[in-house]
Amino acid sequence: MTIQTAAPTADAVRAALQEALRPESVTWDPAILQAYSRDYGPVDEPHTPLAVVFAGSAADVQATLRLANTLGFSVVARGAGTGVSGGAHATENTVVLSLERMNRILELRPEDEVAVVEPGVVNGDLNAAAAGHGLMYAPDPASFRQATIGGNIATNAGGLRCAKYGVTRDSVLGLDVVLADGTLIHVGRNTFKGVAGYDLTSLFVGSEGTLGIVVAATVRLRYLSVVQKSVAALFPDTALAAAGVLAIARARVQPAILELLDAGTLEVIDQAHGTNLAARGGTLLLVRTDGHGAAIEEALIREALGALGAEISAPGDPVADQLVELRRSSRGDGQDDEFRVGEDVAVPRSRLVGYITELGAIAARHDVKVRVVAHAGDGNLHPTFWVDPAEGPSGIGRLQVALDESVRAALDMGGTITGEHGVGQFKRRWLGWEQQAEVLELQRRLKDVFDPRGILNPGKAIQ
Amino acid sequence: MTIQTAAPTADAVRAALQEALRPESVTWDPAILQAYSRDYGPVDEPHTPLAVVFAGSAADVQATLRLANTLGFSVVARGAGTGVSGGAHATENTVVLSLERMNRILELRPEDEVAVVEPGVVNGDLNAAAAGHGLMYAPDPASFRQATIGGNIATNAGGLRCAKYGVTRDSVLGLDVVLADGTLIHVGRNTFKGVAGYDLTSLFVGSEGTLGIVVAATVRLRYLSVVQKSVAALFPDTALAAAGVLAIARARVQPAILELLDAGTLEVIDQAHGTNLAARGGTLLLVRTDGHGAAIEEALIREALGALGAEISAPGDPVADQLVELRRSSRGDGQDDEFRVGEDVAVPRSRLVGYITELGAIAARHDVKVRVVAHAGDGNLHPTFWVDPAEGPSGIGRLQVALDESVRAALDMGGTITGEHGVGQFKRRWLGWEQQAEVLELQRRLKDVFDPRGILNPGKAIQ
Repeated sequence: MTIQTAAPTADAVRAALQEALRPESVTWDPAILQAYSRDYGPVDEPHTPLAVVFAGSAADVQATLRLANTLGFSVVARGAGTGVSGGAHATENTVVLSLERMNRILELRPEDEVAVVEPGVVNGDLNAAAAGHGLMYAPDPASFRQATIGGNIATNAGGLRCAKYGVTRDSVLGLDVVLADGTLIHVGRNTFKGVAGYDLTSLFVGSEGTLGIVVAATVRLRYLSVVQKSVAALFPDTALAAAGVLAIARARVQPAILELLDAGTLEVIDQAHGTNLAARGGTLLLVRTDGHGAAIEEALIREALGALGAEISAPGDPVADQLVELRRSSRGDGQDDEFRVGEDVAVPRSRLVGYITELGAIAARHDVKVRVVAHAGDGNLHPTFWVDPAEGPSGIGRLQVALDESVRAALDMGGTITGEHGVGQFKRRWLGWEQQAEVLELQRRLKDVFDPRGILNPGKAIQ
Repeated sequence: MTIQTAAPTADAVRAALQEALRPESVTWDPAILQAYSRDYGPVDEPHTPLAVVFAGSAADVQATLRLANTLGFSVVARGAGTGVSGGAHATENTVVLSLERMNRILELRPEDEVAVVEPGVVNGDLNAAAAGHGLMYAPDPASFRQATIGGNIATNAGGLRCAKYGVTRDSVLGLDVVLADGTLIHVGRNTFKGVAGYDLTSLFVGSEGTLGIVVAATVRLRYLSVVQKSVAALFPDTALAAAGVLAIARARVQPAILELLDAGTLEVIDQAHGTNLAARGGTLLLVRTDGHGAAIEEALIREALGALGAEISAPGDPVADQLVELRRSSRGDGQDDEFRVGEDVAVPRSRLVGYITELGAIAARHDVKVRVVAHAGDGNLHPTFWVDPAEGPSGIGRLQVALDESVRAALDMGGTITGEHGVGQFKRRWLGWEQQAEVLELQRRLKDVFDPRGILNPGKAIQ
């Protein structure tokens, strides 16, 4: 369903927003419109928003949505814009609603291990506040220093620590949400457990602002480990590194972090940080254990990886920790464009090595380059495909074919088109490859219940 | 919305079911109708189903739902019937659809740490199969030896181990579901992570058969710890025991199991097992650590609880393990009735002691008895209220008032009306105390999308 009203003029929208909100909450400065017109994801078709609203409260969000209904514009909610699937891209006739000024930690209750935050709180800031109480907010996307909790919730963000601690959905207990008609509701709970009614909280998490706009979140905190042990293990090839992932599992160790970085990824780190990892060749596994058993688990991991012939960092050598932090806080080497696309599939863990082999075959077949980094503990891979920009359209064409084949290969192995980045705008073309027509239709009908006029982030998340 | 068709005769329904299914899959034997007319929850109004169908396949479930549409009866799906909120109670004009014969483990993939099961697989049977590979299916309701995975999914069952490993929803990756119109869909994924589209899987989990009927589930398995350490700590009173719960948290230990049993609960165990726990007085904490750090964590727990003056089982004393197993596998002392009701609220963990104190005050005020067992690590309490059956209606009246007040008190402390048992039929009267009108309405509208004719388990789960 789409908006019934004819599209309003930009002037009318701007004037109405200024009247409904404080003037300093609304802007149409061209540079800001441009900056807020997209996130880090590939752009199919650029659009400039009619205005950007910087909400300061739930009431601002409600007022904006009420105007959207009366005037007939759509609303793209936005955190820090660090998403990589285009979930926050402006579309036609759009007001971008930034939540970044709603950045207060409303409650932090150490004994309950719970925090209540506004959506614009930066992930890293919540973690810094929690650390003062020996706690952490577990989901840690690589963009944690910029990304907001609201954006993390919109995309159900993952990260490195979710091998052990789960993704965003596993840490969100309750939400305050403004619905498309401006109604403010509270869903979920304030306790670790609770099964009252349907799980609307999980439905909103990962819905990319298409069902409602989160204005507060109650999140569970976890224990910040006082002990962490890191192991860096270099393998001669990716197949052996993937065998290492399974060997750690067979040792029945659940690492907090378990990352696989191939030779191409090591080159990127070398270029960014002046290291010389690639020169030593091969594929790197980075493993971090935490909790009171961290040292015991470290020893088990060393034994398991040593038996496979890996070159392992010495116990206590700070290089392993440094490498984990390099990987952990890296946003990679800048923004993707039409000549370079980072992907985000997941496969059953036993298929890791088969999938990486297949990626190499796909790249060779279409004469594109590929490198891979993986949250290997979860079977979640981020291959990056690229071609030389000098090639122009022919390179872009081959890149797109390789992307399609890489996604198809993941599905053929029982995988998914997106492990943690979200469908957004960019991955919609593949959603029907994964989900049957009846499931796509069911999602459209749910969307209609929440947003009958199609105001909320149209053209995203579902097909 | 309700069924439009006039109610069919029992004979017509039975004949049509027999024609559509194999004859041995349908029964209206009075003893079976009676046995399948209810679960372990309190019964408001007894109803006898028109028939019981024992589905052997997804096709049987589809055929039953198609007939429900054409003939106009409603369908109550049922696992082992061990639920305690009346979610599987028969209502008027109902066919009970038992999934217990669909009890095959379809896949168990140790390297992926994933199993695919039919809904009638008994929780304990899946765990036994997984244990052969050093794995476990984490959710472990006290009824795990009888309860099915399908029933666990319908209620989003918890259990003892969810303090560390999460509830059913945290272990379910994907589902095959038959919708109200008989369509078979697959939702979710086959991988640990995945964010393609809306989280329909979480929506079905805990929906008590009101949105669709689960005919297969893909579940995540976890590592079965080879080391387990148990500690039994007796405190002079409940306030100190609750302080012990917080002391373990402050030691930053996440036990696999953390149970609190008050004096009244110890008496029940004594009666059932010939122990003499109650004679020693006070409140018992049962703690189990697992994983490679189990011994280190055990030592930290001993230190924390010892500092509070608890009487702690000696290291290695088998009594602690025995007590955990007694608690773990106990279904309590039989079925509740109108004179005795077990409850299931959850509160923020810091409110445990305040809530237990309040329970005592409520019981005293209304001259009813109360005892408490709690999954203390989660703040999830199971108080049992009872009166002497000899009192008749006046006792029942006081019991109901005490129940209402106990639920209100939990909500006043930021808690929920149900931590893990589900709303079913019994707790619907309290749902509106917890959830605002707009949220109740939103759930009705979702129900309408999935089940426009009101065929699936009417009168359950939502208000």
